[in-house]
Amino acid sequence: MIQGSHAIDIRRREGGATSGLEDQVAVEEPLEIRLGYATPEGRAHRAISITMRTPGNDRELAAGFLFTESIISHADDVLSIDHCGPPAPSTGYRNVVRVELAAHVDVDLGRLERHFYTTSSCGVCGKTSLDALHANGLHAFGEDPGRFRESVLLSIPAKLRDGQETFAQTGGLHAAGAFDASGKLAVVMEDVGRHNAVDKLVGHLLLNRELPADDLGLMVSGRASFELLQKALVARFPLLAAVSAPSSLAVSLAREFNMTLVGFLRDDTYNVYAGTGRLGL
Amino acid sequence: MIQGSHAIDIRRREGGATSGLEDQVAVEEPLEIRLGYATPEGRAHRAISITMRTPGNDRELAAGFLFTESIISHADDVLSIDHCGPPAPSTGYRNVVRVELAAHVDVDLGRLERHFYTTSSCGVCGKTSLDALHANGLHAFGEDPGRFRESVLLSIPAKLRDGQETFAQTGGLHAAGAFDASGKLAVVMEDVGRHNAVDKLVGHLLLNRELPADDLGLMVSGRASFELLQKALVARFPLLAAVSAPSSLAVSLAREFNMTLVGFLRDDTYNVYAGTGRLGL
Repeated sequence: MIQGSHAIDIRRREGGATSGLEDQVAVEEPLEIRLGYATPEGRAHRAISITMRTPGNDRELAAGFLFTESIISHADDVLSIDHCGPPAPSTGYRNVVRVELAAHVDVDLGRLERHFYTTSSCGVCGKTSLDALHANGLHAFGEDPGRFRESVLLSIPAKLRDGQETFAQTGGLHAAGAFDASGKLAVVMEDVGRHNAVDKLVGHLLLNRELPADDLGLMVSGRASFELLQKALVARFPLLAAVSAPSSLAVSLAREFNMTLVGFLRDDTYNVYAGTGRLGL
Repeated sequence: MIQGSHAIDIRRREGGATSGLEDQVAVEEPLEIRLGYATPEGRAHRAISITMRTPGNDRELAAGFLFTESIISHADDVLSIDHCGPPAPSTGYRNVVRVELAAHVDVDLGRLERHFYTTSSCGVCGKTSLDALHANGLHAFGEDPGRFRESVLLSIPAKLRDGQETFAQTGGLHAAGAFDASGKLAVVMEDVGRHNAVDKLVGHLLLNRELPADDLGLMVSGRASFELLQKALVARFPLLAAVSAPSSLAVSLAREFNMTLVGFLRDDTYNVYAGTGRLGL
């Protein structure tokens, strides 16, 4: 089985002394996503993305990427997702995934270039980024008082660490985990890139027909950026908790769409930046 | 003066008690980079990138982005870099930068789509990513035994933290710093995105005509990915040190191009993944 880490020989310096040792580093390799889709002229195939990722859960990564970029919106949009081509000779990883879409999917590849950004007459700004999300059909969450108990929230960081197999070896991977209101961790994904970890998680839920995720919370290692909040919003997580700080625009997005945003979740302390009602506070 | 952070009201929970407080969050706003350049038909203007960044050093960010993407290669390629348009009404930030390039610059915007990746008959893999760097004209560093003393290396993390003005307030920004062999920190840049922090730093050196950076080391907060190593290589930093772990492909790049790669640089310990000779080890 191909792992997300591999061993290399390094030198370690400590207090002026050198030792040679074998270290585990997180694997980073390019993944090419190829899309097969129907056009008026017949079926087309095109490479649409190359992203650096940690091998493993490539099918979920591809599905989640297409979903959070709004190329697809339902598991039924996907006919098949498979690796294609032989393993790369130098590393043994299979780095190409082909996604065949159903005939009913109207593919708008322009989305990948536009993302969710639009330029208005006032130029770009945080507000235009939020407006673009509305224009994309995303709407605010309803009230859901006390949906997640504090004891559940506080239990998640330790569960996320326990679920991170490769991080324990390398210290070099981000994690994303989905948990329910009882505190059960439904799924944990890892990647060198935080966005990829969330895409893998969203893709897993999509392929298992567990989206929208409106009864789940999302926890991420590291910081909460606009892009992570946007992915959570598209997958309909009403709550996102981060180990570290959110950005200004992440807070604005959470407040605009009535999401709960928690930061600096460590031990028995945390900050709530938006949506306190969902935590019963 | 517009700062990289702003104050918001939040709730803090600690040991079951709630307090309201004013928190500083790092600002994240989109920056649009517009390029003006000569074509056979006359001067063209085109928006080439929208990236989420922390306002501040936008000129350096634009210059560094164009340099590390190999759209420009010298300070003389740039005629002017200026904000254009009025401040965004909602936030007051100026989020559009226009870069006018000299007539001699042969602009290949296809680079932005291709980045440095190429697909070979074997599909994509780490090796094709490295081969693409060679094909782009990048060559390995020569030997430079003992260029950076250990005492200098160990002094940099504290200097980097001291130089991070906004991080101290928000806990939410990445930093990149360039230092010389005497341990002097030449410049520190901050951003919500690690890649942006490095681009700002490289852009600063470019506009000050201090590239190539072959007598400087580069230190970054967080992890060392392939993309960060690639940016360091293009700017010709022979050494990159990270607070946290490198990825497998970052190690491969450093070894391929004879760069020194240091990880987990904390207190008096660190790991050397490549290029031990430059540290005199």
